[in-house]
Amino acid sequence: MVKSVLSVILVLVAVSSVFGKKYIPKSGKRIPQTLSKGWGDQLIWVQTYEEGLYISRTTNKPLMVLFHLTECPHCTALKKVFSEDKEIQRLLDEEFVILNLEYETTDKHLSPDGQYVPRILFVDPSMTVRAEIVGPYKNRYYSYEPTDLKLLLNNLKKALKLLKTEL
Amino acid sequence: MVKSVLSVILVLVAVSSVFGKKYIPKSGKRIPQTLSKGWGDQLIWVQTYEEGLYISRTTNKPLMVLFHLTECPHCTALKKVFSEDKEIQRLLDEEFVILNLEYETTDKHLSPDGQYVPRILFVDPSMTVRAEIVGPYKNRYYSYEPTDLKLLLNNLKKALKLLKTEL
Repeated sequence: MVKSVLSVILVLVAVSSVFGKKYIPKSGKRIPQTLSKGWGDQLIWVQTYEEGLYISRTTNKPLMVLFHLTECPHCTALKKVFSEDKEIQRLLDEEFVILNLEYETTDKHLSPDGQYVPRILFVDPSMTVRAEIVGPYKNRYYSYEPTDLKLLLNNLKKALKLLKTEL
Repeated sequence: MVKSVLSVILVLVAVSSVFGKKYIPKSGKRIPQTLSKGWGDQLIWVQTYEEGLYISRTTNKPLMVLFHLTECPHCTALKKVFSEDKEIQRLLDEEFVILNLEYETTDKHLSPDGQYVPRILFVDPSMTVRAEIVGPYKNRYYSYEPTDLKLLLNNLKKALKLLKTEL
């Protein structure tokens, strides 16, 4: 009896995997990609620069644009501390529109000293790129290392302050 | 004894939620956003149009661009059948570069007869928008209803055929 019930269950499983509703790739089931790409799973990221500019303008929040690459070790190291820093994550969640990108946009203002990763730029709701908000490096102004999170936090606050003083 | 173990566990849980590594929004934990937005969780979606064009060119696969909005009932209805159609999902997964967007791009070629949702366009690896691949409606050429999936599947095959015959 138990055996026949088991066979019925097995047949049902086999049938449902063939006629089941969901498509499964030949290479096996995948974990759905997230928009955060690991830079803060609890944050609400915009998908594109156009979307970021629009939401920044309508919510009057500054936009942070973070350029990175999956296969870049400097990015991975920064991502770890960045995603675990509660103060940065909270400030970004509550006061910023945020975008992470693996491909460059057509806006040259987002690469004032070249295209490299990691690279963090701030854009005002007026669509002005805040090129004066820089990291500690003179060869790559918009780059940050994992040890520079304190400066990054200060730069977030600076972006908010600039926004308020110029309203 | 059981009671004291329980209190210790409770204290540990409380402490870890305050000093835990991960940021949790005031409004409560969120489900991370996916790039698929529900249009096919098992598929690999590109994030931006620039990324789509680049990957289309380098892989020599046509790019499908799907414009939609979360709060559009026509989109939701199409999304349901679209994401459950195994043949469409498999063809997209294996032969296409795919992008879904909630915001328009700056490329006017992606809105030959206006900006509306849902709207599906195909772009060749040569970066030519295939405006001749249309749905069944004369007022909105690139729109599809849930009952038009057969035509959409044929249009996917048409995009592949055009690509091959013109190489």
